[in-house]
Amino acid sequence: MSATRFDKLAASLRNSGLDTVALNPGPTLVYLTGLHFHLMERPVVLLFSPGQAPAIVLPELETQKLVGLPFEITAFPYGENPADWNNVFKSAVQSLGLDGKAIGVETLRMRLLEYGYVKSGAPDANFPDASAALSALRIRKDAGEIENMRKAVKVAQNALEAALKNFKVGMTEKEFASELTVQLLRGGSEPEMPFSPIVSGGLNGANPHASPSDRPIVQGDLLVIDWGATVNAYISDLTRTFAVGDLELEYRKIHEIVQEANAAGRAAGKPGVPCANVDIAARTVIDKSGYGQYFTHRTGHGIGMEGHEEPYMRGDNMQLLEEGMAYTVEPGIYLPGRNGVRIEDDMVVTKDGSESLSDMPREIRVIR
Amino acid sequence: MSATRFDKLAASLRNSGLDTVALNPGPTLVYLTGLHFHLMERPVVLLFSPGQAPAIVLPELETQKLVGLPFEITAFPYGENPADWNNVFKSAVQSLGLDGKAIGVETLRMRLLEYGYVKSGAPDANFPDASAALSALRIRKDAGEIENMRKAVKVAQNALEAALKNFKVGMTEKEFASELTVQLLRGGSEPEMPFSPIVSGGLNGANPHASPSDRPIVQGDLLVIDWGATVNAYISDLTRTFAVGDLELEYRKIHEIVQEANAAGRAAGKPGVPCANVDIAARTVIDKSGYGQYFTHRTGHGIGMEGHEEPYMRGDNMQLLEEGMAYTVEPGIYLPGRNGVRIEDDMVVTKDGSESLSDMPREIRVIR
Repeated sequence: MSATRFDKLAASLRNSGLDTVALNPGPTLVYLTGLHFHLMERPVVLLFSPGQAPAIVLPELETQKLVGLPFEITAFPYGENPADWNNVFKSAVQSLGLDGKAIGVETLRMRLLEYGYVKSGAPDANFPDASAALSALRIRKDAGEIENMRKAVKVAQNALEAALKNFKVGMTEKEFASELTVQLLRGGSEPEMPFSPIVSGGLNGANPHASPSDRPIVQGDLLVIDWGATVNAYISDLTRTFAVGDLELEYRKIHEIVQEANAAGRAAGKPGVPCANVDIAARTVIDKSGYGQYFTHRTGHGIGMEGHEEPYMRGDNMQLLEEGMAYTVEPGIYLPGRNGVRIEDDMVVTKDGSESLSDMPREIRVIR
Repeated sequence: MSATRFDKLAASLRNSGLDTVALNPGPTLVYLTGLHFHLMERPVVLLFSPGQAPAIVLPELETQKLVGLPFEITAFPYGENPADWNNVFKSAVQSLGLDGKAIGVETLRMRLLEYGYVKSGAPDANFPDASAALSALRIRKDAGEIENMRKAVKVAQNALEAALKNFKVGMTEKEFASELTVQLLRGGSEPEMPFSPIVSGGLNGANPHASPSDRPIVQGDLLVIDWGATVNAYISDLTRTFAVGDLELEYRKIHEIVQEANAAGRAAGKPGVPCANVDIAARTVIDKSGYGQYFTHRTGHGIGMEGHEEPYMRGDNMQLLEEGMAYTVEPGIYLPGRNGVRIEDDMVVTKDGSESLSDMPREIRVIR
């Protein structure tokens, strides 16, 4: 697996005019090597130049992770004293002859910490953004990846159903978020979840990125639940909005509109169609309803090993969908100071259309 | 609260020769402003220059987080199209007149993403590492911070006791890690935990940073459990090692040695003593026992809002301990391919000594 992926990477680097790539911990490193590290105060960097064994700089106490890797790798371990780290990085960078070269980096991952160390060994290198070349490797999911995402969706859906059985009006958002997390873990999600569940009732639901608060969930609330699971490093990311008891008429109405927008967005994706079309399809429904100004974000984002990745479903994104691309469709209406609705599904582009991995009912459901 | 903290920051910047500081999401931003953001593909940067209201660049859909802040802040929101972001950053940077200035950054937090945007508005600025100036703000914990850490320790200890009631020989490491996480949440930890629990049995325990695996926990294992909770954004980070049934004599022996090393490390901390002394005290016990080569990491790290922060308990760190500093003492012995032991407590420096916030028994405990 990894050998093939390194071959794909080599081709992608050549096409992008990059001599090498410097990766720190994150999904691309996991995708290529299976190596998981935490991003902390001890820097870890993998350097890959086509035609050579990759080099990795890492703490001595992490070197056991390299045992049994199915490919050759040259380790440059360092001890606990940060004063020594610069020399270790220099050795690694110089062993691959990287000075003066184009060293691709992921600007969303690489910190000034790792950048500084790599640059110290290659002062005349330049560091172009390799995000596009790297995300191209991962953007079309293979059957195994889709199967993992399908499982992550199933775990998430079952967990929410289980958590809803323990729902009571008057619980705080935090309490229900905690209950949902418990059910995600019991149901088989890996402990490293894609994100902490969002549970937002009433006016908090009008903030698309709210964190669960100590506000009790009360009668008349719309309750936005945005949650996901991780299975074999692949994730799900879903949203459903519930009615807590009886709703004001307008809230039922905005839920219906968002449901229709979600359906339109889901129907729009197929091979050869620009990402923009998915956004436009969903947004048009909401615009026509008169609530356009309250749909304040793009319609979706790519999904796989990361919560947000390429491709993005924005009205200005002319990138064409291809078989195997996976993304969310998540239109919403947010009435500031009042209530919000969002409905989100995880889609995969098929040979001639697209399929929703998620099938939990989207109709408004009353919980009491 | 925040006004005082901004005053402290201003003084710290002046002392460090910095004109301003650029912060992206993380503990320092939370400490200063109470603002939580996720580090994702939409960059968020707060710019602070002493004597001026701070400026923040952020996505439009996050601006509600600024409502009701107890200090003045100038928002520079941007929309969903990344093509527009550069201009918004330029406006923010230029509004504070930052070009040519010394803009401090946290190298462990700031990504090339945010750095690139800030630099585009201030091409002649330089970007010194402000980590020391910023960590100095947070390194001495006040009574409220210590109280939160004390609660986080209590939640963690109670959760492990609850999880142990459901322990069965033959469970996998992952299953027990999941059970422990469930108990942490039920017991009151915030869903954003400091880290996923480490549960490592037998030979996996010989890797200090192992992730829980599908290996069943079997009779004769030493079982290393390294776990923590989050309460009001402050964390705990503890380790205890258990005997699964009857142990080989050598494993009992290394547990005793580590227990003694932990006690020596805990006893060594007090105001005016270098961090090195804590490391040396613990390490000397293990060295004398003949297992020195198997204690492969520093004795501890600072703790507060982050899993690892200043000050670090390393033999070469001559930084002096001061009242209110908080840190871990976590010596270990790791026998490659066989078993490992680690015992970790969370300490706070008091007026004339140091106190362990954790009091769970450290003696070897047999679980069956």
